[in-house]
Amino acid sequence: MSLPAGDHIRYGGDYNPEQWPTEVWDDDYAAFDLAHVTTLTVGVFAWAHTEPAEGVYDFSRLDAIVERAHAQGRDVVLATPSGAMPPWLARAYPDACRVDLEGRRHVYGQRHNHCPSSPDFRRLSVAMADRLAERYGDHPAVVAWHVGNEYGGACYCDLCAAGFREWLRARYGTLERLNGAWNTLFWSHVFGDWDEVVPPSMLSEHWRGPNHTAFQGITLDYRRYMSDRLREGYSDEKAAIRERSALPVTTNLMGFFQPLDYHRWADDLDFVSWDNYPPLPDDPLRTAARMAATHAAMRGLKGGQPFWVMEQTPSTTASRDVNPVKRPGVLGLWTWQSVAHGADATLYFQMRQSKGACEKYHGALIDHSGRTDTRVFREAAELGAGLARTGDALLGARTPARVALLLDWDSWWAVEMTDGYNRHVSYLQTLLQHHRALWSLNAEVDVVPVTADLAPYDVVVAPLLHLLKGDVVERLTAHVEGGGSLVTTFYGGRVDEDDNAYCGVPPLDPLLGTRVEETDSGVPGAANPVTLELDGVATTHDATLVFELLVPDEGTEVVGTYGADFYAGRAAVTRARRGAGSAWHVATGLDDAGLARVLRHVLTGHGLVGPHADDVGVEVARRVAPDGTTSTFVLHHGDAPVTVTAQVAGEDLLTGRVVRVGDDLTLAPAEVLVLRG
Amino acid sequence: MSLPAGDHIRYGGDYNPEQWPTEVWDDDYAAFDLAHVTTLTVGVFAWAHTEPAEGVYDFSRLDAIVERAHAQGRDVVLATPSGAMPPWLARAYPDACRVDLEGRRHVYGQRHNHCPSSPDFRRLSVAMADRLAERYGDHPAVVAWHVGNEYGGACYCDLCAAGFREWLRARYGTLERLNGAWNTLFWSHVFGDWDEVVPPSMLSEHWRGPNHTAFQGITLDYRRYMSDRLREGYSDEKAAIRERSALPVTTNLMGFFQPLDYHRWADDLDFVSWDNYPPLPDDPLRTAARMAATHAAMRGLKGGQPFWVMEQTPSTTASRDVNPVKRPGVLGLWTWQSVAHGADATLYFQMRQSKGACEKYHGALIDHSGRTDTRVFREAAELGAGLARTGDALLGARTPARVALLLDWDSWWAVEMTDGYNRHVSYLQTLLQHHRALWSLNAEVDVVPVTADLAPYDVVVAPLLHLLKGDVVERLTAHVEGGGSLVTTFYGGRVDEDDNAYCGVPPLDPLLGTRVEETDSGVPGAANPVTLELDGVATTHDATLVFELLVPDEGTEVVGTYGADFYAGRAAVTRARRGAGSAWHVATGLDDAGLARVLRHVLTGHGLVGPHADDVGVEVARRVAPDGTTSTFVLHHGDAPVTVTAQVAGEDLLTGRVVRVGDDLTLAPAEVLVLRG
Amino acid sequence: MSLPAGDHIRYGGDYNPEQWPTEVWDDDYAAFDLAHVTTLTVGVFAWAHTEPAEGVYDFSRLDAIVERAHAQGRDVVLATPSGAMPPWLARAYPDACRVDLEGRRHVYGQRHNHCPSSPDFRRLSVAMADRLAERYGDHPAVVAWHVGNEYGGACYCDLCAAGFREWLRARYGTLERLNGAWNTLFWSHVFGDWDEVVPPSMLSEHWRGPNHTAFQGITLDYRRYMSDRLREGYSDEKAAIRERSALPVTTNLMGFFQPLDYHRWADDLDFVSWDNYPPLPDDPLRTAARMAATHAAMRGLKGGQPFWVMEQTPSTTASRDVNPVKRPGVLGLWTWQSVAHGADATLYFQMRQSKGACEKYHGALIDHSGRTDTRVFREAAELGAGLARTGDALLGARTPARVALLLDWDSWWAVEMTDGYNRHVSYLQTLLQHHRALWSLNAEVDVVPVTADLAPYDVVVAPLLHLLKGDVVERLTAHVEGGGSLVTTFYGGRVDEDDNAYCGVPPLDPLLGTRVEETDSGVPGAANPVTLELDGVATTHDATLVFELLVPDEGTEVVGTYGADFYAGRAAVTRARRGAGSAWHVATGLDDAGLARVLRHVLTGHGLVGPHADDVGVEVARRVAPDGTTSTFVLHHGDAPVTVTAQVAGEDLLTGRVVRVGDDLTLAPAEVLVLRG
Repeated sequence: MSLPAGDHIRYGGDYNPEQWPTEVWDDDYAAFDLAHVTTLTVGVFAWAHTEPAEGVYDFSRLDAIVERAHAQGRDVVLATPSGAMPPWLARAYPDACRVDLEGRRHVYGQRHNHCPSSPDFRRLSVAMADRLAERYGDHPAVVAWHVGNEYGGACYCDLCAAGFREWLRARYGTLERLNGAWNTLFWSHVFGDWDEVVPPSMLSEHWRGPNHTAFQGITLDYRRYMSDRLREGYSDEKAAIRERSALPVTTNLMGFFQPLDYHRWADDLDFVSWDNYPPLPDDPLRTAARMAATHAAMRGLKGGQPFWVMEQTPSTTASRDVNPVKRPGVLGLWTWQSVAHGADATLYFQMRQSKGACEKYHGALIDHSGRTDTRVFREAAELGAGLARTGDALLGARTPARVALLLDWDSWWAVEMTDGYNRHVSYLQTLLQHHRALWSLNAEVDVVPVTADLAPYDVVVAPLLHLLKGDVVERLTAHVEGGGSLVTTFYGGRVDEDDNAYCGVPPLDPLLGTRVEETDSGVPGAANPVTLELDGVATTHDATLVFELLVPDEGTEVVGTYGADFYAGRAAVTRARRGAGSAWHVATGLDDAGLARVLRHVLTGHGLVGPHADDVGVEVARRVAPDGTTSTFVLHHGDAPVTVTAQVAGEDLLTGRVVRVGDDLTLAPAEVLVLRG
Repeated sequence: MSLPAGDHIRYGGDYNPEQWPTEVWDDDYAAFDLAHVTTLTVGVFAWAHTEPAEGVYDFSRLDAIVERAHAQGRDVVLATPSGAMPPWLARAYPDACRVDLEGRRHVYGQRHNHCPSSPDFRRLSVAMADRLAERYGDHPAVVAWHVGNEYGGACYCDLCAAGFREWLRARYGTLERLNGAWNTLFWSHVFGDWDEVVPPSMLSEHWRGPNHTAFQGITLDYRRYMSDRLREGYSDEKAAIRERSALPVTTNLMGFFQPLDYHRWADDLDFVSWDNYPPLPDDPLRTAARMAATHAAMRGLKGGQPFWVMEQTPSTTASRDVNPVKRPGVLGLWTWQSVAHGADATLYFQMRQSKGACEKYHGALIDHSGRTDTRVFREAAELGAGLARTGDALLGARTPARVALLLDWDSWWAVEMTDGYNRHVSYLQTLLQHHRALWSLNAEVDVVPVTADLAPYDVVVAPLLHLLKGDVVERLTAHVEGGGSLVTTFYGGRVDEDDNAYCGVPPLDPLLGTRVEETDSGVPGAANPVTLELDGVATTHDATLVFELLVPDEGTEVVGTYGADFYAGRAAVTRARRGAGSAWHVATGLDDAGLARVLRHVLTGHGLVGPHADDVGVEVARRVAPDGTTSTFVLHHGDAPVTVTAQVAGEDLLTGRVVRVGDDLTLAPAEVLVLRG
Repeated sequence: MSLPAGDHIRYGGDYNPEQWPTEVWDDDYAAFDLAHVTTLTVGVFAWAHTEPAEGVYDFSRLDAIVERAHAQGRDVVLATPSGAMPPWLARAYPDACRVDLEGRRHVYGQRHNHCPSSPDFRRLSVAMADRLAERYGDHPAVVAWHVGNEYGGACYCDLCAAGFREWLRARYGTLERLNGAWNTLFWSHVFGDWDEVVPPSMLSEHWRGPNHTAFQGITLDYRRYMSDRLREGYSDEKAAIRERSALPVTTNLMGFFQPLDYHRWADDLDFVSWDNYPPLPDDPLRTAARMAATHAAMRGLKGGQPFWVMEQTPSTTASRDVNPVKRPGVLGLWTWQSVAHGADATLYFQMRQSKGACEKYHGALIDHSGRTDTRVFREAAELGAGLARTGDALLGARTPARVALLLDWDSWWAVEMTDGYNRHVSYLQTLLQHHRALWSLNAEVDVVPVTADLAPYDVVVAPLLHLLKGDVVERLTAHVEGGGSLVTTFYGGRVDEDDNAYCGVPPLDPLLGTRVEETDSGVPGAANPVTLELDGVATTHDATLVFELLVPDEGTEVVGTYGADFYAGRAAVTRARRGAGSAWHVATGLDDAGLARVLRHVLTGHGLVGPHADDVGVEVARRVAPDGTTSTFVLHHGDAPVTVTAQVAGEDLLTGRVVRVGDDLTLAPAEVLVLRG
């Protein structure tokens, strides 16, 4: 089971016509025609009107919506409505609402807030999925299933506590093993009975918030459990659908979303879809890099399979403190970027702007004015036309990459809930910093789990690989010895899968050829200058936050040294040659330029620096179709026109313009080329 | 029913002699004599000693207090004690305590914290009001009733939830109408039973705090309901009093107090009184302007009727993080300012400083030392003498104004709880900015509700008129077509009374001659330069936070244009001529100078720029007595002496000094003239 | 009962070998040998394995630990495990867990969190103490008892509420007295029944947090009560131990720890021990001064008796946001400093680094690597050797001082929970500022309670002596009249023991010769320049936060005057000569230099400026042994070598080096001399 069938890059998005009288629907479809909209996501929040009371189903409105779409030649992605329960459900079953980290039972409100252990919620949501599959499973308009919506959060109720205990029994088998994993002799926590275990909350192990816990092991397991628990709800709905429908099933993920381990969700998704709402673009290039990283991570959930962008906004968000409009061209630029990195569909939230409640000022294809002569609509329509022009040329195409960036939720969780050394270390920002250095070189990068097959890659970059699990050390060693490069950082390989520190010689040390004798840390902004000696050139860079004091093994090459404090002159960056390859240890928080220098050196060694690596703001990315045809995307993220010497050739799929290597190539702001040939 | 009878500007304040042995009372009255104190507010926190156990009344102390006041020739404002319940009440009736926004039931403590739905609290507070009215309703010393104290806050208990449902039934009649008003199809919130509705709290619709809600409609209605609910408690007490006493009834309001819609309270107040505690005076002119605005708003609650300042501090507050003393002369300056803007009484909290608990360092006429030779006492005594000197000359005088500034709690609430566009927009700060621009021109301004009769005004300024209700558009249109000017801002006329966005053409647009195509926003400090062309002169000003991209109708005059970003050159400020008047649309957050320029231009067109408009810090305000006599107040807020050319004439009521137009007029810091003739 | 017997400065620390297999113990003792470790604290968190189920005791592991220590010639400090309850206890007795300030009952987790009123917790903890004393009370290895661990926090449950009412009855006897103490007529709080009293929490009197309360009196009493209540639990355990063991009993305190009034705990401790974790050393001299102050305060708990440093870290902490390593030499420097100021033992947390949970990155003598060739281990071993070299020469030695700095928990609490004048005033920071000025002059200072005998002192420094209790005014008056100096500050002598303001003439005023007419305050950073005239020289200094406007009595000398604002020229610092001495009133927040100038002048008058007072970073401190032998410690806190002219003479106990007065004395960073002779 893989992606939905289709013959084009899908375009459209969330459509909630139940909020409007049917005469408005006519206007909607007229606008859809203008914008080349092909695909509509319906039913996401339909529970209240499809089951107005328990067991009373009324599909009349949904029927009308699906029929109309079909009549107008549109495909439908049909959602189960479990992302937002109706009022009657919360009233009848109060324990369908969550208990939060503060121990408070919530009552009815908002969305994405059901207790994943509530038997009533699960029964009713699965029954609804079953009914929907029964009714629409064979409908010719329906092309895929969208279960729930943006799963997330956590519940701390008694039912979840009971579930946690079962999950622990399954994981550990015995209390002895559990007590060992959690190191419970520390602070007298030895559990003598499974029922003594309570969820780690602000009323038990936590202080200050979700990342401050007395027992990292308990909290880590609760995160794993809660990720699994929410997934069970998804999977139960999926199973109910599968009984009646052979169509692919997904749910819309949220990119780098810390609460859920998407790597553990991936097997249950037929295809990946995600919602692209990057943070406020204070720096357009950072935003672009971040989106590229997220596309790669989402693509990496299912081994490089193309994915869908299930949501993005055509203009503004509403939930941020400040919600600027997307600048001219940016909608197209970002949409094409998603396609460049593997998207086979690019959809909006939403088709028509709601008139009330908290998303009434969130952008939409059709805004409150209902007009189609606005800048936003015009840009969206132009984009729709451009996507249509590509036909099926890009569909299913893969993105080749020989650089792997390792992403691991366990390390993410462990690093950020650790007491010591430095609370200012952000797993995600560190990962993104490493990605940004690679992206700025137009290197092709996959963001993959630590369990991924490393054979396709020449370079593996593993920032903050704090927690080691499975055979990762063996595989990294084989990768290096087989000629690959490995780049790791401070905090690497410190703890095992239970978040217990390695004693004696940590297992990653022999590969890296280093021992960490001490770990110093500094407040944000307090820098130690690190001098890098690479290719015969010395440069000096700020290093901040964490300073590992290394003792290199004999033969380990010192590439960077600290310049200040009592460890001035000691190793800060090392390279150990192992077999045909090298293992790098970047033992401190190098600044962007320093890190980029190390990574460029490593990529250069493998011939993996991409085209236009020195043309700031010019992104290049490739997709290779099943038939081997390569499309090379050239995207200009700068806000001024730029003229570069073309380093890739082909005919632009959008305009027919032919580019030859060596040409003067002038790119307008937000300009996109899709070169083939 | 209007203001209490009297023949002078009342002077005095809260007096709690029950905290002291009676020998101290002798000292009190000796000090009152020195300070010309005429009026004492008693009984505000008297519940515990007037009803020491349920149904056991003991008025001996209160009798003594009232009798002593009477014997000493002082008038009494008699308070009902419902602002602070006694301990026995909370213990006997735990649901008289509130449930807060976090869902937590409070227990006994603090004050101003009763659940307004508690039948026991209401029964007992009304019974107490009844007893007080019975005992003191005809007492010759008593001149007015003061019900409760500084009403505020909100409760989220089950009783309030039940009351909310009743309030909703009364407002909407049917669930269909309710679901429409709240747009409940969004996020599957369709209510199928009134009992499914729960108060919007941190356990239901809210996140982050009181201004972040998933359903603006629900929260907006809860605010309206809670404002009404608290008012019911006030009104029940008032009704009990009215059964036995014909004296005027008030409660002390708190100026620009967001939680309560004072416009909905106004009808139930016989006269308005309020407590003047301006924020820390980092800039004396801003503070002075703010107080002038607040006086105008309080005056505006009852159509311009004079009001009382029920509380102010003679020196310091205590509850702020930093509590500086009032600088020399400031007490008098601010007090005279209140009189200039319509106060018929000016009272303190409090007469004698408490020795313990949280207000022990709050200033008082008589401080812990008990001395009358302190700077503060001397200034207060001098002020008392000055007020006494005016006799009844100012009493009941009205403040003429031809400029109206519209204040609306619904828009205040809606703007600040909106998701999007920019959370940094403050309704109150924007309103005050507009007022400050008018005040600095010494324009006479009323701050009135959107339902006010606009006939008396030439200029209507309506910042952030976000939510439209009733016939406001028709009345604004008539105002403009009849020759008036209207100045509106960004966010104007976006939503209806249910906070649902207008679709198609918003009703205010035809009057303004503009269409808002997009709304951009920026972080605080990020400015777009706006160039204003007025009277043939171009000036450029920073604009921040919100940037509406206007499409002006044909004939709409573009007065200001953006200077940067992709909308450089587009309209930022427009003027549409309609009939004999003009409608202005200021589509962005202009800085003070820019806004002042627009407003000065508008006022100039109507001849409404006041005297001394260019003498910074010199405030001029007038009151016109029922017999037509005008008193013109000249107040100097600067901290250095200034000499100006007199633009108003008359004889100073305080000193007898005669001022003629054209005289060199030297004003000391904090100097005040009251010119008549 | 006093300090544990012994013949050396003890060295060692917390040892939790139950977390490791016994083969690791061999490595531990090998390392202890290298490091000269003599003393091990065991059993601190042993409850779970010594009583794995209620009433089921299993001392096999503890026996093995104690026996092994004994076999290896180490002394044992045996802890009762009540600092961390086992899971079964919380499950069986949910009310052994606390209710927090927010009113939330906690469940199992963390440590130091039992309800001190829980009869079950008290019963079980006392039973455990009894069992331990029975089993190990006569064990030859055991030298002292360590009850619980780092007591702190507060509980607000119904049992604690009931206990509070009993405590109040005992304190006040009648409700009339209680109502007077709390000034309950303010805000109608008159309590008519003891049962109406509820703990002051966020659900009753508090807002914003623990320092914001409507009734300071209630909160102050709850703090006193809770400090007593926690102490009862300690005392009950101690009593159980004393039944079976004659060894000294302590618990590890936390220095300047605001929640507990250690002066009220002192009588119940046989000797004082405390845990030295100074805040992040942004400025090494501030840190050194702070530690010196804390040593003095801990020493002051029991009249100057030597104390133990029960915990410090050899390298990093883990619970801070940033946890830097101790720089080379700093461990030794700080340890010797503690000895210089009265420590007879200096111990670590901990001997071997835990492998899991929240302290896994807290430093330890033996870290995860298990190596003894690390910098940290080497420094610790060198320090152990140095301490061993001193034998019993320093043991039991007292620290002479003729300057007393008054510390008072009641004033600390009262100042910081006061509404007004300025919330930015920190009691502790003000105290430390005064200490720092004295310390930088190498003056010998005791930090003592206000109840201390003042006879030994020439100078008494009493910053923020806000709340007066007992006969403190009489004793201060006698001190001054007898020739002593007294230095007080703003906020002094304002309230009585109930935190009620003095009315009329406050009792401290006659001694100071001043009256505070007004108290102005400013935001942090807003300064008024104060000019000091001392010894014929005028200097000007910034003063901030609080500005008392003094009216000096006739004859009171004005030493400092304000330079700005309406009180320019008025007294800011005064000196009143009384009998043979002087009373100083520093009426504003002088900056460090200004305060140091005043204090140096005062000390100079008494010949109390110490040696090397002008050698920045060179600390000098003395201990005098019972036999009269004086050891003078010279400690260099600077980070560069310095050469000074020796002002003290003797032979260095550590190196044998002889120093004569007048010698050029070169000190390396972190160098320490212990001069005798």
